[in-house]
Amino acid sequence: MAKRLWSHQWGQWAEESQKSKRIRRSQHIFATCRDPAGPKSEALRELVKKHPSAITIISLDADDPSSVKESAKKVGSLLGNNGLNLLVNNAGIVANGTIQTSSVEDMKNTFNTNVIGPLLIIREYLLYLQMAAKASRIPGMSSNKAAVINISTVAGSMTRMPSIYNQFPTLPYGVSKAGFNMLTVLAAEEFKADEILCMALHPGWVKTELGGDEATLEPKESVEGMLRVIGSLTEKQHGGFLDYTGETVTW
Amino acid sequence: MAKRLWSHQWGQWAEESQKSKRIRRSQHIFATCRDPAGPKSEALRELVKKHPSAITIISLDADDPSSVKESAKKVGSLLGNNGLNLLVNNAGIVANGTIQTSSVEDMKNTFNTNVIGPLLIIREYLLYLQMAAKASRIPGMSSNKAAVINISTVAGSMTRMPSIYNQFPTLPYGVSKAGFNMLTVLAAEEFKADEILCMALHPGWVKTELGGDEATLEPKESVEGMLRVIGSLTEKQHGGFLDYTGETVTW
Repeated sequence: MAKRLWSHQWGQWAEESQKSKRIRRSQHIFATCRDPAGPKSEALRELVKKHPSAITIISLDADDPSSVKESAKKVGSLLGNNGLNLLVNNAGIVANGTIQTSSVEDMKNTFNTNVIGPLLIIREYLLYLQMAAKASRIPGMSSNKAAVINISTVAGSMTRMPSIYNQFPTLPYGVSKAGFNMLTVLAAEEFKADEILCMALHPGWVKTELGGDEATLEPKESVEGMLRVIGSLTEKQHGGFLDYTGETVTW
Repeated sequence: MAKRLWSHQWGQWAEESQKSKRIRRSQHIFATCRDPAGPKSEALRELVKKHPSAITIISLDADDPSSVKESAKKVGSLLGNNGLNLLVNNAGIVANGTIQTSSVEDMKNTFNTNVIGPLLIIREYLLYLQMAAKASRIPGMSSNKAAVINISTVAGSMTRMPSIYNQFPTLPYGVSKAGFNMLTVLAAEEFKADEILCMALHPGWVKTELGGDEATLEPKESVEGMLRVIGSLTEKQHGGFLDYTGETVTW
């Protein structure tokens, strides 16, 4: 049975991945969030009621190294010998600012959540991804074998961000996501020998708490697109950067 | 008289720029360093003895926002109405590590010195760069008018770093420099209207405290190359990434 970890806070991932035809139906999802009992996790709790055997909610705060460690221990205890097939690093915060207005605190907080958080998550779950890669009989790389999908953004692209910047001056966010992209290409380099696929994915501009009401995409449309892309990945996309439609994003 | 700020710790900059034919001879240099009275600044102090009217040593610690502010106040009090023509952001630290071994402390420290430091330096000196751009009668952009040169590295390039990474697993450094590159392209976007040139420059692998003894380039060769590049910049390189030989580095 394929095991997937959606990290974190996006109930839509769990919902849509239940319906996806491209990724294996027989699967178990660990949906992580900061506060499983809190009001923001209500939709996720409802979903678990509908699919009690398919989804487990795990408490995880990407900003807190001990919470990351604890979550991995918990997931580890629930996993079988076949490990974890797919880790989606979906945690992220945005902060606005320009050269003249960005606060040091926003620079540090975005870096902490958007870069150090995923680094720690990848590190703590690596053992289970390695187990999945070893247990798999599928040749090459794929998201059904072992993969890390880092949810990035065109705001982390040196070539794409400048034209976005005047309308959306989010310097702390852009800087952190460029660092996150570097983390992705280096993880890809490091995990080549383990045959763990690793790539960056731009979800589009989505109507979420982060994206805001003016965003152009419904969460459903974005997640459906990303699941299609995730399901179609091979070693050709290892270390790459795609958007939710499957188009390559230039660094 | 052109005013230049070398920020910080590299006496070679001051020495070579005194001899450069490409940048204006009539100039004053503010050479910044963390500890002007300490043993590491001895060579710089010797240089000032040789060129007392051309170089002023300024105390600056890129990690300390109040030190950055103080240094700008001091330089401001010494500048005339023509402002500051050139700011070279040369501060940087390196930290080794992989996904599995990078410490949270190293991630934070490299980001602080290599990204937040330059952000604060650019912000605090911006007024003087704007003064220089306004006072200049030179059309377009150039380093003789008003420019920010961010000393980056190929280790901050998504396309170049992976092949370097196996030999030099410096994940915290690479991640911070990718963030620094994003800072550069966004500063370029922001300063377009002011006609302040802004770009990233790779110095090569240099025998400095950071580069180590195995490095392939002498500081003199690297700095001579960079001064040639800096002296030849036009608006075509605004927001770009070049190495010390003038070759474009892909992001």
